Amino acid sequence: MTHSIAILGASGYTGAELVRLIATHPGMTIKALAANSKAGQPMAQAFPHLRHLDLPDLVTIDEIDFSGIDLCFCALPHKTSQEVISALPRDLKIVDLSADFRLRDPEAYQKWYGNPHAAVDMQGEAVYGLTEFYREAIRGARLVAGTGCNAATGQYVLRPLIEAGVIDLDDIILDLKCGVSGAGRSLKENLLHAELSEGYHAYAVGGTHRHLGEFDQEFSAIAGREVRIQFTPHLIPANRGILATGYVKGDPEAIYGALSNAYAQEPFIELLPMGETPSTRHIRGSNFCHIGVSADRIPGRAIVIAALDNLTKGSSGQALQNANLMLGLDETEGLMLAPVFP
Amino acid sequence: MTHSIAILGASGYTGAELVRLIATHPGMTIKALAANSKAGQPMAQAFPHLRHLDLPDLVTIDEIDFSGIDLCFCALPHKTSQEVISALPRDLKIVDLSADFRLRDPEAYQKWYGNPHAAVDMQGEAVYGLTEFYREAIRGARLVAGTGCNAATGQYVLRPLIEAGVIDLDDIILDLKCGVSGAGRSLKENLLHAELSEGYHAYAVGGTHRHLGEFDQEFSAIAGREVRIQFTPHLIPANRGILATGYVKGDPEAIYGALSNAYAQEPFIELLPMGETPSTRHIRGSNFCHIGVSADRIPGRAIVIAALDNLTKGSSGQALQNANLMLGLDETEGLMLAPVFP
Amino acid sequence: MTHSIAILGASGYTGAELVRLIATHPGMTIKALAANSKAGQPMAQAFPHLRHLDLPDLVTIDEIDFSGIDLCFCALPHKTSQEVISALPRDLKIVDLSADFRLRDPEAYQKWYGNPHAAVDMQGEAVYGLTEFYREAIRGARLVAGTGCNAATGQYVLRPLIEAGVIDLDDIILDLKCGVSGAGRSLKENLLHAELSEGYHAYAVGGTHRHLGEFDQEFSAIAGREVRIQFTPHLIPANRGILATGYVKGDPEAIYGALSNAYAQEPFIELLPMGETPSTRHIRGSNFCHIGVSADRIPGRAIVIAALDNLTKGSSGQALQNANLMLGLDETEGLMLAPVFP
Amino acid sequence: MTHSIAILGASGYTGAELVRLIATHPGMTIKALAANSKAGQPMAQAFPHLRHLDLPDLVTIDEIDFSGIDLCFCALPHKTSQEVISALPRDLKIVDLSADFRLRDPEAYQKWYGNPHAAVDMQGEAVYGLTEFYREAIRGARLVAGTGCNAATGQYVLRPLIEAGVIDLDDIILDLKCGVSGAGRSLKENLLHAELSEGYHAYAVGGTHRHLGEFDQEFSAIAGREVRIQFTPHLIPANRGILATGYVKGDPEAIYGALSNAYAQEPFIELLPMGETPSTRHIRGSNFCHIGVSADRIPGRAIVIAALDNLTKGSSGQALQNANLMLGLDETEGLMLAPVFP
Repeated sequence: MTHSIAILGASGYTGAELVRLIATHPGMTIKALAANSKAGQPMAQAFPHLRHLDLPDLVTIDEIDFSGIDLCFCALPHKTSQEVISALPRDLKIVDLSADFRLRDPEAYQKWYGNPHAAVDMQGEAVYGLTEFYREAIRGARLVAGTGCNAATGQYVLRPLIEAGVIDLDDIILDLKCGVSGAGRSLKENLLHAELSEGYHAYAVGGTHRHLGEFDQEFSAIAGREVRIQFTPHLIPANRGILATGYVKGDPEAIYGALSNAYAQEPFIELLPMGETPSTRHIRGSNFCHIGVSADRIPGRAIVIAALDNLTKGSSGQALQNANLMLGLDETEGLMLAPVFP
Repeated sequence: MTHSIAILGASGYTGAELVRLIATHPGMTIKALAANSKAGQPMAQAFPHLRHLDLPDLVTIDEIDFSGIDLCFCALPHKTSQEVISALPRDLKIVDLSADFRLRDPEAYQKWYGNPHAAVDMQGEAVYGLTEFYREAIRGARLVAGTGCNAATGQYVLRPLIEAGVIDLDDIILDLKCGVSGAGRSLKENLLHAELSEGYHAYAVGGTHRHLGEFDQEFSAIAGREVRIQFTPHLIPANRGILATGYVKGDPEAIYGALSNAYAQEPFIELLPMGETPSTRHIRGSNFCHIGVSADRIPGRAIVIAALDNLTKGSSGQALQNANLMLGLDETEGLMLAPVFP
Repeated sequence: MTHSIAILGASGYTGAELVRLIATHPGMTIKALAANSKAGQPMAQAFPHLRHLDLPDLVTIDEIDFSGIDLCFCALPHKTSQEVISALPRDLKIVDLSADFRLRDPEAYQKWYGNPHAAVDMQGEAVYGLTEFYREAIRGARLVAGTGCNAATGQYVLRPLIEAGVIDLDDIILDLKCGVSGAGRSLKENLLHAELSEGYHAYAVGGTHRHLGEFDQEFSAIAGREVRIQFTPHLIPANRGILATGYVKGDPEAIYGALSNAYAQEPFIELLPMGETPSTRHIRGSNFCHIGVSADRIPGRAIVIAALDNLTKGSSGQALQNANLMLGLDETEGLMLAPVFP
Repeated sequence: MTHSIAILGASGYTGAELVRLIATHPGMTIKALAANSKAGQPMAQAFPHLRHLDLPDLVTIDEIDFSGIDLCFCALPHKTSQEVISALPRDLKIVDLSADFRLRDPEAYQKWYGNPHAAVDMQGEAVYGLTEFYREAIRGARLVAGTGCNAATGQYVLRPLIEAGVIDLDDIILDLKCGVSGAGRSLKENLLHAELSEGYHAYAVGGTHRHLGEFDQEFSAIAGREVRIQFTPHLIPANRGILATGYVKGDPEAIYGALSNAYAQEPFIELLPMGETPSTRHIRGSNFCHIGVSADRIPGRAIVIAALDNLTKGSSGQALQNANLMLGLDETEGLMLAPVFP
C-alpha cells in the first residue's frame, strides 16, 4: 500500500529535495506538484535532474483535488504558507516547511517575522517538527511545523546539554556556517555565483537572525527560564551543509555524556568519539547529523560541533521523517541514502 | 536472499562509491573490504561519510576468504589489478574497475599502458563492461572489465552513430570536460584544491589519453574499419561529472534518430528533446546519462553532448549494473537513486 | 600629468574591473562614475572591495559634466550603449565595452542582436578594439569598440592561422569554456551559485552565440572569402577565465610558426613551447593571454588553445590597453599586474 | 635605485606571492630564487602564472651569492628556516615567513613546535612582524619574524581591545574560517580538491593550534597578565581568505572606539561603519584588512570580525610591508593593488 502525496511549492529547492527522496520511498506516491509561478510546466523543466521520474506536471494549488491526498508537504515561503494552509481541508495531514507554525506565541511570530499571524488558531495545533524531541507528538499530529535548518542544527548541539543541566545557560555561543542553498532559489544579487564563490562572510550578526525565535522558545521551555544565546551565521561557498560550532561552559565529559544519552538510539544522529570533529562533506545529501565534542584547553569549557545537510536533515529529510511517523510508517523509510562523497 | 560481496581497493573513490550504492541495495551484503595501505582501519576512518553503516573493517586482500564471496569488485590501480585478479579463484565472479581487461589486444594494452600484460589468457575471457552494448555477454560473464569513465561517455555519444552509419568516420572530434574525482585519491600536486579550483585546462592533448585505446578498439570493431577520433579531455573544478561534446558530420535528424533507436528502452540513458543540452549537475550522484543533440548552423553538422557522473555511471554504478546482471538480479537494483541537486 | 576618466555603467563587473585596474595606473584619474540604478550610492556600497579608494560617488549619466573628461569608458548593456553614446559630445574619446559597435554592417548587427542599430553613422567611425590587430587605427580613433570576450579569445587562436593561410578554412571548430562573470551581474536563476557550482554545460549550441557575428566579420575579412566556424561555449563553475580549444587542419609546425610570428613582440600574448597547454588559473586577474599548440595523433591536425581572463584581457584590460593608445600613453601602463594564483 | 632581493623557498605559495607583489614594485629587483627540491627549473615551470616575468631560475640556497643581496625573504618550512637563517651572513637583512622566530621564549617554541630551537640567540634579535604594532622596531630590525596568518587576523581584532582595556580578558572566543592555501603546497590527502571542496570543518579544536602560542605571547604582554583565548579554526573551500569572528564582552561603542583609534591612520586597515560586516571576497589578492563591529542583542557583548587574505596581508604582503620599512622605502610601495573581485 502506498500513500498519496502532494507537494506545494515544488519549484524550490526543498520541494525538489522532497521529490528526490520520495523517488525511492516504497510507501509514497507523488500525486500532485504545485508551483503557481511555473504551473503548466513539466517538473523536468523546473528541475532537469528529476527528468527520469514519472511525475505529474506542475499545477496551481487551486487545481489540486485534495480529497485523494493522504499527506501534503507545504514548501512555500513564510506568510504565503499560513494563508494557503488555512484554506486546506481541516482533516488533511500537513508537514509545513516554512517558518509559519514554528513559533507558538503569536507575538513572538510578529516580532521575528514582522507581520501578524493570519492563522493563530492553527499555531496552537501545530507540533514542532524536531523529530528526535517531539516524536510522540508528531506521530499523532495533523500539522507539523518543520524547523529552521539552522535552528535544527543548533538544537542538536544544545538541547541535551540544557536538558541535562550540564552547561552555563548565560554563556552560550553558536557560530554557524551554512551553504548557499539555504537561501533558496531566489533572485538576489548576493546569491549569484560570482558574488558568493571564493569568499565568505557573516550575516544577521548580533542577534537578528529569525531562527533565534526558535532557539529562544525551545531553550527557555527546556530550561524553565529565559535562555538567550548568541548566534552568528556565516555564508560559505558550498551548496549544501550546515556546521554549527557551539562554545559552552561545563565539564566536557558531562557534556559528552548528555549527548550520548540523548542520541544513543537515534537512527540519524551519530555522536563521534570524544575529540573528533564532523565535516559537512560527510553528511552531504543524506539525513544524517554528525556531532563531535572537544574539551577546550581552558578547563570547564567545551566545543560541540554538529554537521548536517540543510536541505535534507535540515528541512526536506526532516519533513519526510515526520511524515513517515504521521502515516504510521517506519521512521527511516526512504531516508537511509548514504551521503555523497566526494 | 542476498549475495555476498567483496570490494578490493575500498579506500579509493570508486571503492567508496560502490559501498554507497550497495548500502541501499536489497540484494547484496558487503562481506569484505580490502585496502592494503589502510588495512586494520575501520572503513569510517578512511571514509567518514560511511560511518552510519555496519561494515567490515579494512583488511589486506590476502586476509579475505573468497569461498563465501559471490562476487568481487576490484577497484585497484591498473597493473596491480591484473596481478591480483590472476591469483583469485577461477570461479569467482569479478567486476574489474581498472584498465587491465578493457583492451582485448595485448599489444594495444602494452602500447597504451607501457607494460606487457601479465594475464593475457584472462584478457580473452573478459567482457567489456559497457552494459547497454554488451548486456547479454555480461549476463553470462565471469570477468567483466569496467570501461574508462571518459571512454563510456564518448561511446554513449558515438556508438549508435557509427553503428547506424550516419556520420563521417574520418572527422570525429570529442572535446571532453571532466571533474577531478576521476583522477582518484592520489597525492599529486596538481590535484590539490589550491591548484585546481578556479581554473581549467586541457590535458593529454593531441591523442595521448589512454582511453583512446578503448575508442579505437570499439569504434573500429563497430565500423569494420579503422576509426580514429580526436579526443581532448579538460579538467574542470568540480568533483564529479563528465561532459563530452561530440562534433560530427552527418544529418542531425538521422543522428537524433540513431540515438533514439539505440536508447529508447534503456533505463539509464535519457535522450533530451532535439536542441536541448545536458548538464553534469543534473546527473550528479546518479547512474543516469543525459544526451542532447543540436544541429549546427553549418548544414550537415551536429553537436552531440552527453553528461554522466564519472564515479557512478562512469565506473561504480556501471560496475553495479553489470554485477546485477551477472547475479541474475534486476539490472536497475540499487541504482535508481535520483541525482543530487543542487 | 594625468588624464581625467569617466566610467559609465560602473556598477557592473567590467566597470568595477576598470576601477581596479585604473587604481594603480599612474596616468589616469577617475573623475566620474555613473550607474543609473545605483546613483547616489558610494562606489564602496556597490563594490566593497574598492572601499580603500578615494572615488567619486555613483551618479546618473546626465549628471556628468563631460567637458573635463579626456576619455570615457562605456560599460553599459548593448542597445543602451548606442543610445547613450549617440548623445555624448562628438569630440569625447570613448572606449565602448558593449556589443554595439563591434559589427560594421548594420544588417549583421540586426541579425545577431535583434534590433535595428540606432547610431548607424557611428558604426562606421568605430574601430574594432582587438589591440594586437588594430593597434594603429586605435591610436588615432575617437570611438573604439571593445570585442566580445569569447570573440577575443577565439581570434587570438585563429587570426594568425587564417592570415598565414596555414589551415583549412572549412573545418574550424572552437570549443570554448568560460567562467560565470562573463554573464554579468544580472539576476537570472541560472546564474545563482546553487545552480552553477559543481556542474557544467554547453549553451548557445549550434551556431547561435552572438559572438559568431564578430568571428564571421573578422575571419571573412582576413581570408577574403566567407569563413564560418563552429563555435560551442560551455559555462564552467569558476568566476573568471576563458579557455578556447581550437581544432584545426593544417601542419602543426606551420601553425606554431604563424602564431610565433604574430605574437613575438606582443607584451601580453605568451606563446608556450610546442606541446604545452595553458590554464585559465595562470592568467587570472591579469591582462595576459597564454596560447599553446599541440599536434594531434592524426597527421595534419592540430589543437590550439588560448586562455585569458574574460574581465581583464577579454574586456576591461583590453579597454584600458586601447585607452592607453588613444591617450598617447605606454600601451602597457597599469596593466602589468601579475596573475593571482592560487 | 633598486634593492636586490633573494627569496628562499620560492616554490611554495608564499614565495610565489612575494614574486607576484614584487613584480610591480618599483624599488626591488629579484636577484635570486631558491627552492632546493626544484633547483634547476625555471620559475615558470613551478609557477606558470609568473611566466611573463624575467626571473632568475630556481637554485639551491647554497648557490646564492648573498654579498650582492640587500634583503632576503625566507619562505621555508619552520625548523628548516632556523637552520638556514643561522647560516646566512649576519649582516643580511631578513624577513622570515616561517614560525621560527615568532615566539620569543624558547620554551614556548618547544611547547608548540615540538623541537628545541636551534638558533636561540637569534630569537632574541628577531622583531615580531605585525607591522601596525611593531612599526618602529621593524624599521631598525635586521631580522623580522612574519606572523602566523591566523595570528595576524586575530590580533587585528583583539589587540586594540586588550590595550584599551575595554573587554573582559577571561572570555574571549575567536572562531576563525580560513581558505586552503594557508596549508601550503603540501601533498596531503586532506588537501586534495575532491576532499576539500563542497564541505567545511573545524580542525585543531580545543586549543591545540600553534598560532595560540603567538596569541598567548602577545595578548599577555599587552595586558600585563596571562591572557588565554579560545580559538577554533575552520577550513573553508576557497583558496584565499581568513575571516576571524571574535566574541567579546564589553561595551560595543567603546570597542568600536578602541579600534577606530588604533587604525585611523593605518593605510591597510579599514574599519567599516558600525554594524557592517566584512567579507573575504572584498580583500582577496590585496594587502587590505577589513574589520566590522556589531553589538549583540545581549547587552555588553559584541562581535568583531576581521577579513584578510592569508597569502597577502597574512604573510607575503605583510613581509613586503616590513621589508619596505627595513629598506627605508615607503611602507605601502608595491602593495596598493586593489582586491580582485569577482
